[in-house]
Amino acid sequence: MSELKVYNSFTREKEVFKPITPGHVGMYVCGPTVSGESHLGHARPYITFDVIYRYLMYLGYKVRYVRNITDAGHFEEEGRAAEDKISKKAILEKLEPMELVQKYTNLFHWAMAQFNTLAPSIEPTATGHITEQISMIQKIIAAGYAYEVNGSVYFDVKKYAEKYDYGKLSGRIIDDLLETTRTLDGQEEKRDKADFALWKAAPPEHIMRWPSPWGEGFPGWHIECSAMSGKYLGDQFDIHGGGMDLQFPHHESEIAQSTICNHKNPARYWIHNNMITINGKKMGKSYNNVIKLTELFSGDNPALEKAYHPMVIRFFILQTHYHSTLDFSNEALIAAEKGLRRLWEAYEHLNKMTLENGQPAAASAIDEELDKKVKKLVDEFEEFMNDDFNTAKVLANMFELAPIINSLKDKIIPITALTPGTFNLLQEKFGLYIEKILGLKSITEADNDKLKG
Amino acid sequence: MSELKVYNSFTREKEVFKPITPGHVGMYVCGPTVSGESHLGHARPYITFDVIYRYLMYLGYKVRYVRNITDAGHFEEEGRAAEDKISKKAILEKLEPMELVQKYTNLFHWAMAQFNTLAPSIEPTATGHITEQISMIQKIIAAGYAYEVNGSVYFDVKKYAEKYDYGKLSGRIIDDLLETTRTLDGQEEKRDKADFALWKAAPPEHIMRWPSPWGEGFPGWHIECSAMSGKYLGDQFDIHGGGMDLQFPHHESEIAQSTICNHKNPARYWIHNNMITINGKKMGKSYNNVIKLTELFSGDNPALEKAYHPMVIRFFILQTHYHSTLDFSNEALIAAEKGLRRLWEAYEHLNKMTLENGQPAAASAIDEELDKKVKKLVDEFEEFMNDDFNTAKVLANMFELAPIINSLKDKIIPITALTPGTFNLLQEKFGLYIEKILGLKSITEADNDKLKG
Repeated sequence: MSELKVYNSFTREKEVFKPITPGHVGMYVCGPTVSGESHLGHARPYITFDVIYRYLMYLGYKVRYVRNITDAGHFEEEGRAAEDKISKKAILEKLEPMELVQKYTNLFHWAMAQFNTLAPSIEPTATGHITEQISMIQKIIAAGYAYEVNGSVYFDVKKYAEKYDYGKLSGRIIDDLLETTRTLDGQEEKRDKADFALWKAAPPEHIMRWPSPWGEGFPGWHIECSAMSGKYLGDQFDIHGGGMDLQFPHHESEIAQSTICNHKNPARYWIHNNMITINGKKMGKSYNNVIKLTELFSGDNPALEKAYHPMVIRFFILQTHYHSTLDFSNEALIAAEKGLRRLWEAYEHLNKMTLENGQPAAASAIDEELDKKVKKLVDEFEEFMNDDFNTAKVLANMFELAPIINSLKDKIIPITALTPGTFNLLQEKFGLYIEKILGLKSITEADNDKLKG
Repeated sequence: MSELKVYNSFTREKEVFKPITPGHVGMYVCGPTVSGESHLGHARPYITFDVIYRYLMYLGYKVRYVRNITDAGHFEEEGRAAEDKISKKAILEKLEPMELVQKYTNLFHWAMAQFNTLAPSIEPTATGHITEQISMIQKIIAAGYAYEVNGSVYFDVKKYAEKYDYGKLSGRIIDDLLETTRTLDGQEEKRDKADFALWKAAPPEHIMRWPSPWGEGFPGWHIECSAMSGKYLGDQFDIHGGGMDLQFPHHESEIAQSTICNHKNPARYWIHNNMITINGKKMGKSYNNVIKLTELFSGDNPALEKAYHPMVIRFFILQTHYHSTLDFSNEALIAAEKGLRRLWEAYEHLNKMTLENGQPAAASAIDEELDKKVKKLVDEFEEFMNDDFNTAKVLANMFELAPIINSLKDKIIPITALTPGTFNLLQEKFGLYIEKILGLKSITEADNDKLKG
């Protein structure tokens, strides 16, 4: 059996995976910001890391999978901001950010269930870890790598970069950062443009606020993940995952924070999925091409020719290696739908087949070439997954197996052409991979109707 | 239209419901402790307050429904406690209480979805509100009603009782409390046996711990609900709900805490559902008769003759007024199942009926007595709900309507026997109440199979 190798974004090398604690894996994945609805771009990391989680468990590891919910920050409902600032209103008449948080968290969980992703072992919230974040900020201040100005605390990137390599993960050069970082409102108080906030003083109109040693305020985004990953997985853990767009500044800053607090890169292996483009363009508000998950499932977006079943989207995502870009188009989704149906049909046929009378075939009936081919295609499932979780190649092999399975079913090829060992292997591993590891399910019209209803 | 009246446990009177902020209702319901699986006893409060939530919305109120998750405390997995105390173990090898919290929170949410309860507007967690709880404890200490001993903080019940009525909600007499409260381990440090913990110093082996002005520890149970209800609903809100078993000491202590912090009873209306007994006995670990919700749905408990569909349990609970005790038995559940099927069948027939040609019937065909009876039975739905949410009486009326509906369907009674107004009213309100307000759904064998799978 081959060893599991993963591409480590930090070293830019494919490395043999060796967990810190034998038999256990600690994995942290940056979760959603629940100030709005999840979109197609969110589907990729959560489906990618779901398959990684499933595969690590299949390999026998006890995995603690932590995926956070970012629920702290400047949460406002569109159009409500102004009216909510009227302080005379009763508490029940005002926007309560946690109502939005709850609504979008529930919607996120619903969408994740549609995608058949397994729930993480722990799903900590940023607002649920204010004390832990404050403790970590105090440590960074004590070490001399953060400073307070007007009730806000900033990480001193310039000082950090003198001793450590800020930019190693993302490949950014610190001098460029000083040139290119936009000056945002209220950030003039920073010593350097590249510095980032650990704690922000809350202006009077800011609803989300907590007491701190620096006055009332709210935590910065980066410190949240450092505090929560450290609490549940330790100072250094095995895998830190997320989308490539999070490498800078988010993950770069997490590394800096942990380096100062714990003298360690928080993760041994940094794994980043690539982005989804839409008809060749980056997806984003400024491109006006964001497709929400509910819209994908219902078809209710001008960019969509039809509704797409969540399993079609899952299948579409897994048909490309997570490290490559993936271009969304109606044609590609429609092709994915056909592909999933074809594969599932073959899988259902395979499930119904039995070795006749449980007897081994006569040696003379065996088609050695075919037997060898089938065995190889099946054995490669694990080889491909061990090669940085290459689900695309696993599916490609399944597509090669599908016509063979169909021929077996139609008795164009007799079942005795395969050795019982190969046939049993095919039946066992095909099901294991398609259902348990890739997490796919059949799609039926009934499901589609349910989603609409 | 009659006014909504609710039985207020605090005043022991049925009172007209008048919200603090016109058009809005703030409702807090004590949620589950997620250190284990939810059982039958948990089904009643959440189904009861779900109907109250639905009815208040039907009346046109904008309701902010807050139901907490109690996830702080002494959480241990059976049999794991001892081995986890070995401090040499790696973090991933040790029990992480938040893994249990996540597992049982997910299971609770799943069960609540099976019961067709609507998600609350906000579902705050105790661990997510440590800073708020600490702030409140500081306020109580500053007011002179709490004291610190060895890193723990206790509420001074004796001092409170000199000025305020501790025991008013539950009807307990303070002198009795001093006599009857058991002395628990490590509670000798309290000034008085009736005093309760606001903050507990964490012994070295306690995994859940947070820094505080009194050293590392964890919050008491009562302060949790006071901090969270106050944060999201204000110093005083409309409805505080929960099971009757929570009146003492939990709700009594919440009142004391809020009285000191905000000089107010936190809620205008205290609503408590009565308990579920099992074959006439109290349900509890000491009686060895606890039935978990998953066991109810699967039938996998020696006390169960069969599996019960979640809708049967919902229906069973709503067939008794929430303020009365409710005895669980297989006979009662089997009867409930039959009842729900009968009612749903009538409802489906009713849905399919149409006034022929949309023409009003000739006046001569109208059976005035029947018409009056049907109208009265339907009009009473709202009257009964306005009378302290009497779902039992609403269902009783539906059972009186069912044979009439069946006779209309079988044309034993012509549809023209009812005035079009009455027929339309029947059709509209029956559906509104059975689906939207009582939150019932049809039960099918397919559903049952799904639950087992």
